[in-house]
Amino acid sequence: MRIVDLIEKKREKEELTKDEIHFLLNEYLKGNVPDYQMSAFLMAVYFNDMTKSELFEFTSLMRDSGDVIKFEKINKFLVDKHSTGGVGDKVTVVLAPILAALGFGTAKLSGKGLGHTGGTIDKFEAIEGFRFSNTSDELVKIARKTGIGLMGYSDKIVPLDKKLYSLRDVTATVPSIPLIASSIMSKKLAIQSDVIILDVKVGDGAFMKDINHAKELAKRMIEIGVGAARKVKVVLSNMDEPLGYSIGNANEIIESIETLKGNGAKDVKEVVYTIAALALKAKGEIKELEEGYKKIDEVVNSGLALSKLKEFINESGGNGNLVNDYSILPAAKEKLEIFSKNNGYVAKIKTEEIGKAAMIIGAGRAKKEDKIDHSVGIKIFKKVGDKVEKGEKLAEIYYNDEKNVKNSKEMILDAYVLETKKIKEQKVVLEIIE
Amino acid sequence: MRIVDLIEKKREKEELTKDEIHFLLNEYLKGNVPDYQMSAFLMAVYFNDMTKSELFEFTSLMRDSGDVIKFEKINKFLVDKHSTGGVGDKVTVVLAPILAALGFGTAKLSGKGLGHTGGTIDKFEAIEGFRFSNTSDELVKIARKTGIGLMGYSDKIVPLDKKLYSLRDVTATVPSIPLIASSIMSKKLAIQSDVIILDVKVGDGAFMKDINHAKELAKRMIEIGVGAARKVKVVLSNMDEPLGYSIGNANEIIESIETLKGNGAKDVKEVVYTIAALALKAKGEIKELEEGYKKIDEVVNSGLALSKLKEFINESGGNGNLVNDYSILPAAKEKLEIFSKNNGYVAKIKTEEIGKAAMIIGAGRAKKEDKIDHSVGIKIFKKVGDKVEKGEKLAEIYYNDEKNVKNSKEMILDAYVLETKKIKEQKVVLEIIE
Repeated sequence: MRIVDLIEKKREKEELTKDEIHFLLNEYLKGNVPDYQMSAFLMAVYFNDMTKSELFEFTSLMRDSGDVIKFEKINKFLVDKHSTGGVGDKVTVVLAPILAALGFGTAKLSGKGLGHTGGTIDKFEAIEGFRFSNTSDELVKIARKTGIGLMGYSDKIVPLDKKLYSLRDVTATVPSIPLIASSIMSKKLAIQSDVIILDVKVGDGAFMKDINHAKELAKRMIEIGVGAARKVKVVLSNMDEPLGYSIGNANEIIESIETLKGNGAKDVKEVVYTIAALALKAKGEIKELEEGYKKIDEVVNSGLALSKLKEFINESGGNGNLVNDYSILPAAKEKLEIFSKNNGYVAKIKTEEIGKAAMIIGAGRAKKEDKIDHSVGIKIFKKVGDKVEKGEKLAEIYYNDEKNVKNSKEMILDAYVLETKKIKEQKVVLEIIE
Repeated sequence: MRIVDLIEKKREKEELTKDEIHFLLNEYLKGNVPDYQMSAFLMAVYFNDMTKSELFEFTSLMRDSGDVIKFEKINKFLVDKHSTGGVGDKVTVVLAPILAALGFGTAKLSGKGLGHTGGTIDKFEAIEGFRFSNTSDELVKIARKTGIGLMGYSDKIVPLDKKLYSLRDVTATVPSIPLIASSIMSKKLAIQSDVIILDVKVGDGAFMKDINHAKELAKRMIEIGVGAARKVKVVLSNMDEPLGYSIGNANEIIESIETLKGNGAKDVKEVVYTIAALALKAKGEIKELEEGYKKIDEVVNSGLALSKLKEFINESGGNGNLVNDYSILPAAKEKLEIFSKNNGYVAKIKTEEIGKAAMIIGAGRAKKEDKIDHSVGIKIFKKVGDKVEKGEKLAEIYYNDEKNVKNSKEMILDAYVLETKKIKEQKVVLEIIE
């Protein structure tokens, strides 16, 4: 078997056999296939896609390149929820305690953020002393106790994804739907769970800018899941404005806690409740999603969900008292208020612009090596559909370093698009694919 | 400027600027662009083509990567004829002496053959003592004396083509029309000439299997020529049967000499005469190609063309007397005759099959490192349109090594496709694009 023939096959849109996919990836992993052949193959995939069977084999091989995490002693229905990433996306921080309170276990690998704002790891690391599990043993220990199993990615899990992603990053082969699908799903398949719920973000602040691409990605990820005999459900959610009101790390932890206290933003609540209800349905506890909302309200109103978060923070090395004392969290020294220069209705908030405005004051990373300042961030006061008077507050920037603040302010002002006529509120959950 | 952005631009079918093409190729030549980025770029070119301006810049940069050969002291109209390569293609061997006899100079870089049969270099090297010019000085010296300037490729001419071709070869990016066009034309632009005449072969035994691809290639090569203010003419010629009757090296030299004596195969003569007439027209000596044929007949019938070949062989270290004494050429020890098993008319000769049948007995190279046996080859006795009786001779194999001869015979028998009803003769020159 010659690699050049496999590239040619893909170039000619012929289907590669299981053996061929295995040969390509195994030899690449062993270092026998040079990067210049793999990058040509990936570019051919960009143009010619992968068939269902190719994609399943490709993803399985990716998973098999590293460790697979099992939760043998946890007798809970395990939920692996994954978001494709957006601005102000604090869903995991709110959802995991709710699921724990409902009797589920959360089983999830989390990433550090790149671009915009931090990832789930970064948000939790805003808490002094908090340490993410780095080994499977630690993960299982905390998950057994709290029902929350969040683990940072390690080099041992799907190492091939890391290798391929680095190559894709410098060869303009990142935005390929089958390659994105296999990258996400290989990591889902590498961890035991009873249901995988994918929150695919759509819109300005998301990787998928339009609904059709998002649907295609969802379809391909479900296909892979079905091939691996795994239950996969997908929520397509709107990223044409930031999720909730806070963008940053410590301030997103606070907004998450407020959501668990029943004071959450409407859109955050809608996404969290939809996913939690999908978990209940997957477990067979309910037939219609609506039945689930009542159950979720109960664990929120009773304070059970909040106590689960507190427990998880305590078990992970942080001070759980912060759920009632936000002064335990790091706070930025300075605040800049931003006021509207016009009257109107918010027609759109350019989400990516807001994400970048947060990134340049230190809330996110432009490069992998950048350090995050967990205390800084942005709070917005107006969402799409809101009426705004000239001089009314649009946002606040919390910062430590003067540098870039002016720029950040300009970006926020630019991100707000006002119109004179009344605007309909945006839907957050655009579609559920089961 | 980042290479990944240039790859992305090509992937998105946006036009790269002159500066961007220069940056890409110059940095690649300096070793600052890794092969994995270049191969992704080349695959994107395979799918998205290059614009006229991109292709011109790309080709110019290729040319500028090495030496450019000039013929300052030769006061002749210089013709650079190039063939895309076919089976039995001895056109250069016949044409160059005819052009010399007509007062032209031939200025041409020739290659060694890969696949099928040998290239022009290999054919001439069948002559004992024959040495191809390896330096520009040597080339000019012989060209001034004989009017024939044939030079082997050296690493100093378009080194970037060599580097890119090696990469394309292992990344399935060879059959890309703009990349083929730039590879050919960069070498044409690297040598001074007054007209470039391209013989683009079409059909079973050629790189371009169908006329539309061949026309597209011709169009792109003419575009590049026009951009460089060079005169380019293209002949599309049929490769759905071997050219002439002999396939090999020494035996193709003999067939070439016979053609110069007026005993040539109809198809060889047609291609040679067309190209020579195009040269006369380009120089302004004639208005219509037909006028040229008479002039060409004259230099053939007078023996002037043959004497030019003799002179060229003598000047290059060979024994020119071989034009009248073929025993000076190496001859194979054994001969195998192949007879038809059926009656009918030759409808088709699978040219690639015949090329391979010659290659496996040693007339061509499967790998660059393979050595050629100049004495071996195949002679066919029936061409398309000919009537064949059962038991009549189809071909002869001249060989030294028993190995593969049986195989070769089977391939030849398989290559002959007979039909019961009368077949029209094939046209050789399919189209002339000026």
